[in-house]
Formats: sequence, structure tokens, C-alpha cells
Amino acid sequence: MVADSPVLALSGGVGGAKLCLGLSDVLEGGELKVVVNTADDFEHLGLLVCPDIDTLLYTLSGRNNREQGWGLAGETWQAMEALAALGGETWFRLGDRDLATHLWRREAISRGQDLLDLTAQLAATMGIESEILPMSAQPVRTRVHTPEGDLPFQHYFVKHQCQPAVTGFSFVGLETAAPNPRLMQLLLEAAPKAIVICPSNPFVSIDPILQLSGLWPALRDCPAPVIAVSPIVAGMAIKGPAAKMMAELGMPVTAEAVAAHYRVTYPGLIDCFVIDESDATLAPRIEEQGMATAVAATVMHSDEDKRALAAEVLRLASGI
Amino acid sequence: MVADSPVLALSGGVGGAKLCLGLSDVLEGGELKVVVNTADDFEHLGLLVCPDIDTLLYTLSGRNNREQGWGLAGETWQAMEALAALGGETWFRLGDRDLATHLWRREAISRGQDLLDLTAQLAATMGIESEILPMSAQPVRTRVHTPEGDLPFQHYFVKHQCQPAVTGFSFVGLETAAPNPRLMQLLLEAAPKAIVICPSNPFVSIDPILQLSGLWPALRDCPAPVIAVSPIVAGMAIKGPAAKMMAELGMPVTAEAVAAHYRVTYPGLIDCFVIDESDATLAPRIEEQGMATAVAATVMHSDEDKRALAAEVLRLASGI
Repeated sequence: MVADSPVLALSGGVGGAKLCLGLSDVLEGGELKVVVNTADDFEHLGLLVCPDIDTLLYTLSGRNNREQGWGLAGETWQAMEALAALGGETWFRLGDRDLATHLWRREAISRGQDLLDLTAQLAATMGIESEILPMSAQPVRTRVHTPEGDLPFQHYFVKHQCQPAVTGFSFVGLETAAPNPRLMQLLLEAAPKAIVICPSNPFVSIDPILQLSGLWPALRDCPAPVIAVSPIVAGMAIKGPAAKMMAELGMPVTAEAVAAHYRVTYPGLIDCFVIDESDATLAPRIEEQGMATAVAATVMHSDEDKRALAAEVLRLASGI
Repeated sequence: MVADSPVLALSGGVGGAKLCLGLSDVLEGGELKVVVNTADDFEHLGLLVCPDIDTLLYTLSGRNNREQGWGLAGETWQAMEALAALGGETWFRLGDRDLATHLWRREAISRGQDLLDLTAQLAATMGIESEILPMSAQPVRTRVHTPEGDLPFQHYFVKHQCQPAVTGFSFVGLETAAPNPRLMQLLLEAAPKAIVICPSNPFVSIDPILQLSGLWPALRDCPAPVIAVSPIVAGMAIKGPAAKMMAELGMPVTAEAVAAHYRVTYPGLIDCFVIDESDATLAPRIEEQGMATAVAATVMHSDEDKRALAAEVLRLASGI
């Protein structure tokens, strides 16, 4: 089935999921299609852990833990506590209820289901009307380059708590991974009304998606306007290590530098770059560099904030 | 290291573990070596579940749930509840804390450890001084024959709650599985002072151990006396489906029939067959068939019961 004029959103985990929740609230059921990063998935304790997919699932189904900022509401930690007593690896905290998702996914994979189908099934079971599209059925794995060597993403992100300085990234498997065919079908056949690049980490959440074979040119060539929301606000990342990474990579920690990264890496892709009100003075400079810019309230605390930003992004798209 | 004159116990799960706990209480630390059935192990949700090994681990470390009769004390069930909500398989109830054991074991296997080494490591971590020896490092899997076809043991035992009538058993992998080499070493070099066949299910707990290649003749030829305790008391099994199985296999449901099963299948193995006081009248008939018999209080409710039966079994062994 190809829905008419959907909105496509490209998202990583927590930050992107906030805007996706706003979009799913202001759109009709099923209009939102979220293309989600899988490059920070990892095999752990014999399970396939997909942090960004699960954050989307938990957020869009209202199961997420809002206080903690990740994981499930009402989570318990008996398994991790018992695993710690056995001397097992507990640096990546898997809650008891979250474990069920990973056990279910492993079982689905062992039955021959691919990540795309089983994610659709999880979303349906959780009552999510939006489509959640893993960027690829094939594994892509981010490696974070540091002066002391490469680290798998979750080792960098969780085990080492983003301490090592970052010198670059590579995405193992990217060359041979095919973009989710459902996404390519939507781009060609469904006449999307907007493509939204969520305020996720440009380097480890959005780049792995856009650099899948043929993907970003297909997004560029699709008639739908492409709107990107800056994850950097007033020189800080709202969530995660984006700001720290930019500093270590020798970039200014500004929304302008994010715009430049997207403009240089994906020329002609972005039709409108949305920056926060607190960065309004940067707008003329970004525009000068050839990228149309809009100013909005991009910091999302409440659900109302999320809906307001979503509505503004859609309004901007409809004007292009 | 080969301990001097250990006591070897052959055990299945719950019933056998009770006598093992008694034996571990009345023996010196490390004197008890438990050879445990692995034929009802199974792969489930991508995990290797070893019910008899874990029952021994949990019982000998005092972690077992005494009210429930299986699993861990203070267990919680968040993961199973969440898995049920996802439509996952929850007929085999894995508690949150128990899951940690299975996750740890899977991780150990993926690191290349075999079942013997990782079980020893689990026992050490749990502070158990007795040795727990899985019967084999290679997988052996019981299939229960029924008129409707064969069932893997846990499907018969848990999923179908022992409902199907039993027509026989087979042990897949038995021909190629080697007995635990540590057990063979103990038999040859450690001069065991007793070999105890626990009151476990003869067909699905004890037979798979004894029928490992070369094992029961090695036990028979070992100078140590072999004492078996009947799992059938007054025509009933204290725990599990042994009585139901015997009826379905066309055997009288009596301690005498258990004795006959062992005598016919493993001639010359058992030096003393221990029956419960309530079955005392059967003793002459079992003796007539050529098996020395002793009468004891074999029903173990309290820890004192367990220690008393253990002490009696050891007393009987020392008199042979």
C-alpha cells in the first residue's frame, strides 16, 4: 500500500523522536513515515539491540520514560542486578521490560524475519499508526575514530560515556547495505509532501542514513521539500555528544556549522534549514552560504512544544 | 585437582537437588560432586536454558524459591509480562533474575567456554563448594514419544504440562556425547566413597546420564558402593511426572518397579536400593529379585529431612 503524500522524517534516537512525536500528533494516522538510523545498533549479550528504533517505538507508543530520557516508563532492573552479581556485562543497562523487546526480536530473526518486517510488527503490536522504517535491512555499524583507536558506537557512547576525543567516523557495511526498499518506493510513488531531517546528531544519526547507496540523491531529486532542524542551539547540543564531537572535529559549535556540514556533504539536498530563535542572528550568514533558513522555537520540552515545532516545519514545507 | 574419596551424586532437578543439598550439608566442603542431567536443556528465545543445572546452582547456593518449588527466591516477572504484551512465547516462564543466568551463559558460550567450564564458574560465583558436573559438554536432548508424535522434553513437561501419554523416550545426541571427563577422572583416580542415584525421574533424569557412552559400566566397575533412592513413594512421585509415565508405560507405579527398571537396564550397578518407610513391605520382594534394599524416611520436607536422608545414605554406603 502506498499512502498519499506522506511526511518522511529522518531520525536518530531521543532528540529526533521528540519531533516525530510532534509530527505524529499533528498528522493523520499513518501519514508519518519515520526513517530511523540503525548504525548504532549492536549485538550485546547475544541480543540485537536497536536503540534508535526502540526509542521511536517507545516514544510513539507513549511507553517511554520521560524523566530518564531513554528506555521504558516503569522499568525495573532485576536482570541487570542479577547479571552484575554473576560478573556479567552491565555497562549497557537493559531493563527487564526492554529485554522482552530484544528477546522477541532475536526470536523473530531466528524465525527468518528481517529487521524491516519485525519492526513493522512491533509497531503494530504497540498500536503505532506511523510507519517506522529502519534505514536498511542490512547491518551498518558506526565506528568512532579516536586517538586511541576505533570504538564501536555503543562502546564510545555508553561504555566510555563519550569521553574519548573523536577524530572521525566510519560506517561498516554501508557500501553493501541497501536503503529500505519501502522508503525508495515512497519517494518514487507516494508524492511525499515533506521530508524532515530531525534535530538528531548529524554525524552518527543522520549521516549514516543519508550515505546509504543512492539515498540522498533520491531525497534531493524527490519533489518534496527537505526541511532540516538544527540539533545545535546556542552552541549546545540539546541531547547527546554532537557539540562535543564538533569541537573535537575542529568545527565551530554552531547551527551554522551544522548547515555547512549538510550543504557541503549533500549539495542541493536541503531546501530550508530551521534554527532556534536564540540563534536568529545566524540566519543571514547561513542564507549567504546559499541555504534558505527559518527561525523557530526548536527546543522541545512539552508535548505542545513538539506539536508546535512539527506544525511549523510542515507550514514551512507547504510554502516551498 | 582430584579430591580424596568424594561422594558422587547423580541428579535431575528439584527432587534430586533436595538430597544433594542434604549431602552438601553433611559432607565437608568440596566432598560432594553432583553429576547433573542436561538432557532437558533446551534452546529457547535464543538462550540456552539448563533447568537441572540451574536448579542445582540455585538450591546449593540457597537462592531457590522454596514456596514455588522451582526458580529463584524473590523473582520478578517483568520481562515475561512485557514479552506477553508483544505476543512472544511465554509458556516457559523465565524470571527477570533467572534471565541473567541465561544471558550470562550465552555470553560465556559465545566467548568459547563450554558448558562444563561455565557451570563451574557459575557455581564458584554463587559460592558453591560442591562441584556441579554437567553430564556431558555435548548436547543431549530428550524427546518424549507420544501417540501424537515426539515432543522435545520441555514442550512435553511445561508447554503441555505432561498431558500427553508417554510411549517412550529417545535421547538425541546420546551416541556421540562424551561423559564429563572430570567425572571419568574422579571414578578412576579419586576413590569415591559412595555413588548416590538421587530420587530423580528414572526415565528422563537418570537414564540419560547412565546411558552416556561407557558411563554406567564405569560406575559399576568403580569400587564405590552405588546407592539409589526411589523417587516413587507409596505409589506416587513426590515431584514430577514419574508416576504418570510409569502408568502409561504399563509399569506398576511402585518402588519395586523402579528397582526392576534399574536392575534390568543396568545389571549389577546398584548395591543398595533405598525405599521409603511407607513401602517397607516391598523390601523382601525387591531383595528376592536380587537387589539389596534398605528402608528409610525418603520424603524430604525440611532441611533436617534432607540431612537425615543424606546421612542414612552415607551410612548405608559405608556398610557395603
